[in-house]
Amino acid sequence: MLYNKYMNKSELAIGVFDSGMGGLTVLRSLRKALPYESFIYLGDTARLPYGTKSPETVKLYALQMAKILVERRIKALVIACNTATSAALSHLQELMPDMPVLGVISPGASAAVLATKSGKIAVLATETTIAGNMYQRLITENLPNALISARACSLLVALAEEGMVDNDIARTTLEHYLKNLSDVDTILLGCTHFPVFKPLLTEILPAGIAIVDSADATALALQKLLAEGNILNNIKSKINSSYYLVTDSVTRFQKVGEIFLNETLSTADIELIDL
Amino acid sequence: MLYNKYMNKSELAIGVFDSGMGGLTVLRSLRKALPYESFIYLGDTARLPYGTKSPETVKLYALQMAKILVERRIKALVIACNTATSAALSHLQELMPDMPVLGVISPGASAAVLATKSGKIAVLATETTIAGNMYQRLITENLPNALISARACSLLVALAEEGMVDNDIARTTLEHYLKNLSDVDTILLGCTHFPVFKPLLTEILPAGIAIVDSADATALALQKLLAEGNILNNIKSKINSSYYLVTDSVTRFQKVGEIFLNETLSTADIELIDL
Repeated sequence: MLYNKYMNKSELAIGVFDSGMGGLTVLRSLRKALPYESFIYLGDTARLPYGTKSPETVKLYALQMAKILVERRIKALVIACNTATSAALSHLQELMPDMPVLGVISPGASAAVLATKSGKIAVLATETTIAGNMYQRLITENLPNALISARACSLLVALAEEGMVDNDIARTTLEHYLKNLSDVDTILLGCTHFPVFKPLLTEILPAGIAIVDSADATALALQKLLAEGNILNNIKSKINSSYYLVTDSVTRFQKVGEIFLNETLSTADIELIDL
Repeated sequence: MLYNKYMNKSELAIGVFDSGMGGLTVLRSLRKALPYESFIYLGDTARLPYGTKSPETVKLYALQMAKILVERRIKALVIACNTATSAALSHLQELMPDMPVLGVISPGASAAVLATKSGKIAVLATETTIAGNMYQRLITENLPNALISARACSLLVALAEEGMVDNDIARTTLEHYLKNLSDVDTILLGCTHFPVFKPLLTEILPAGIAIVDSADATALALQKLLAEGNILNNIKSKINSSYYLVTDSVTRFQKVGEIFLNETLSTADIELIDL
């Protein structure tokens, strides 16, 4: 139980959802930046991946995910999935004007703008995120002269979900997607699955190219929003807890989730829910 | 409209469903073997892939797919997906004792048993199909001394759905999954997505290894069932027609579907349905 009726609002958990397990890379940053908060993470593992589905379908799924989390009582919502942010963020913000709702694209775009010197930025994301054009638009708003190479790398999602992050297939696939990107100075990982490839990317890319993801930037943005709304949890004696809801196999989430979270997961903290 | 009330039963269409587009390789064989039949193909593109989901979830989805097709009036049902066959075939057969319901696993297993001389067979399939053990069981029933190497190759589904069937990533991935299979004489493609890799497989594998899939064998088995039930369509003047139902983007199905069907698809024949 993350909630009891005597809690005040700042003690409520923060809801986080993703198409599956990629969002756990965001949760990891959130936990680090907000050590006194509790989190409910919802992974729509029965219907992943979102990145090759149409924006209409992703929007519908995102609304369902948000509804499930709101019913569990949360004080803020993080869409830890680029595809769902692109398809549903503005709609969810309109639906819930009193709830801080945050996506990962705007923080990621800001991080890329901060990191680049030459203004030449590559965005690696899923097909649907790239087609949604939100990264390209937000980067250009902040850096009108930016030269952006947007690249759909949907296969990296399947590789990450298979736990193949440093084998021969991962290497060939990364090299394939990175072709002809030699003149950029910043690579933005525009999908929450992609941070697991950072070690291999660092090995493959020439020195001096910045690899940026939105996890840390999203955590800072959330911290700011909670502070502004006066709903940061101040009970510092409490243990930061995380609870997980999944729409498919608990054991698979536990096994593969550890890759993304980079720590052990207990099946006792994972609940299978019906859609 | 594939149905009007003056039709007799033999004129009704044959329902075919799959998690997405892989089943189109089966449809292709069905159309060839049964040139006077009409087909309704349902691809659950909003929720693909099935191969990494739990058997319970796949079973639920398969029942929903079957229901949608039965409501459109069909005379027979083909589960053109190995994962769904493994999870739901026997249940669907029990639910509809008067309808011929056919999966792809039993025909595929028989084809492999016919093709092998040494009895050493490799089964390449998705994680859930391999875990379901149905191929292994059916092959061993017919060939008790068979030596089966079962290999989960889930990544091939994503590659096929991306249309990457003969590039550097496809080659590295196939070589990865084929490691240490040098002593088999037969490779059974136990996923309806995998036949698109046949040209590349032929190039990679040593000569003399038979590559077997279940599409043609399933078509022959269906022909036999329809003849036994006296519901083969005899109106030979009619044009064989196919109609497609999808749960996500019509244009993506049209574009990627052509790879599996190996012929052009018109969006006019593809209908988006709500789940």
